[in-house]
Amino acid sequence: MTPTITAFERSPDRGRGLARDMRVRWALEEVRQPYEVRLVSFAAMKEPAHRALHPFGQIPTYEEGDLVLFESGAIVFHIAQCHAGLLPDDASARARAITWMFAAVNTIEPPILDLQTTVLLERDQSWYRERLPVVENRIHDRLGQLSDRLGDADWLDGGFSAGDLMMVAVLLRLKPSGMLDRYPSLSAYVARGEARPAYQRAFAAQLAVFTGQSPAGG
Amino acid sequence: MTPTITAFERSPDRGRGLARDMRVRWALEEVRQPYEVRLVSFAAMKEPAHRALHPFGQIPTYEEGDLVLFESGAIVFHIAQCHAGLLPDDASARARAITWMFAAVNTIEPPILDLQTTVLLERDQSWYRERLPVVENRIHDRLGQLSDRLGDADWLDGGFSAGDLMMVAVLLRLKPSGMLDRYPSLSAYVARGEARPAYQRAFAAQLAVFTGQSPAGG
Repeated sequence: MTPTITAFERSPDRGRGLARDMRVRWALEEVRQPYEVRLVSFAAMKEPAHRALHPFGQIPTYEEGDLVLFESGAIVFHIAQCHAGLLPDDASARARAITWMFAAVNTIEPPILDLQTTVLLERDQSWYRERLPVVENRIHDRLGQLSDRLGDADWLDGGFSAGDLMMVAVLLRLKPSGMLDRYPSLSAYVARGEARPAYQRAFAAQLAVFTGQSPAGG
Repeated sequence: MTPTITAFERSPDRGRGLARDMRVRWALEEVRQPYEVRLVSFAAMKEPAHRALHPFGQIPTYEEGDLVLFESGAIVFHIAQCHAGLLPDDASARARAITWMFAAVNTIEPPILDLQTTVLLERDQSWYRERLPVVENRIHDRLGQLSDRLGDADWLDGGFSAGDLMMVAVLLRLKPSGMLDRYPSLSAYVARGEARPAYQRAFAAQLAVFTGQSPAGG
């Protein structure tokens, strides 16, 4: 059964692949699973019909028959559970890959979200200039630790997994800030993720929503 | 094999059950799995030996033979995968319960963390008083939506699951603020979690670290 996901009708990132539907598209492309996309306006996201799918009025959602999921991490995990290619078969390696999924959304993403909220919503506040470096320093603490752990490896724990997919997607949110430039190994890690054919296909598909043009190759 | 988890030697919450080892203890108690605890000082958490277990220098960690995990969400998930009682058997219900685990750590916890960081680290900053209500309002948005979804139900999706365990644990971080009081159904939901015998045993065990007394009944 072809799943249907939701994405922004007009993504605030103008198709740069930073919205959370990108993670789900990427996971579906990694496992070669076709999917439908339903675009949702900001107004519709707050309406009861969408809130029935997503209690917090956001994207993405995932519908597959009677199953309705939200939260990009949970959707990526579901895709990884149902199809080979995103989680190792070995139980311990699998548990460690899932650990990186949680680390991405619960340790690395929150300070990055704080930065984005600060830049988007607090730019005109009196405290903006003074607080910004405080927020940035919290991110640098985490990036330094993540860079230490990654070391010279290609991926966080063995082969590419849903943990790397989530981590790269979260780190990509920092790209506009230039903050990753201080960490050559993390920059290379993110570039490695972006270079994956599945990422490229997912990126083209979400960009096509913004440009109104079909991605090359359909 | 009895797993070993790490917890704060001196928890900053003085044993109120708000540190993240509580989630893991609670999960282990729900599935009646004995565990060992190794207490870690703040200084030791930043040392290479602990950083080898937890790249971000935090607690909890989980060691079970050769397997080392960190991130409370990932550890709770691992426990739920290995033992019956925390995730439904039905695949769709299981995916929905896992969705609530991710919602707890990626949608509800980040604004709550922002509040705690603000109160702990920015209290002496010039912007503190002005910014605090902004942070609180973001939490209220989420609590209102969560309360709408919960409605009159006991738990978020059918029976108690690891999704509820994580959500209750995250909401408990708000208890000192009194912010939950505006949401009677959420307050009752959290109280329902706290009333579970497994929660009670876990709470007593973590409090005993602080008081230096063994929990009643060992």
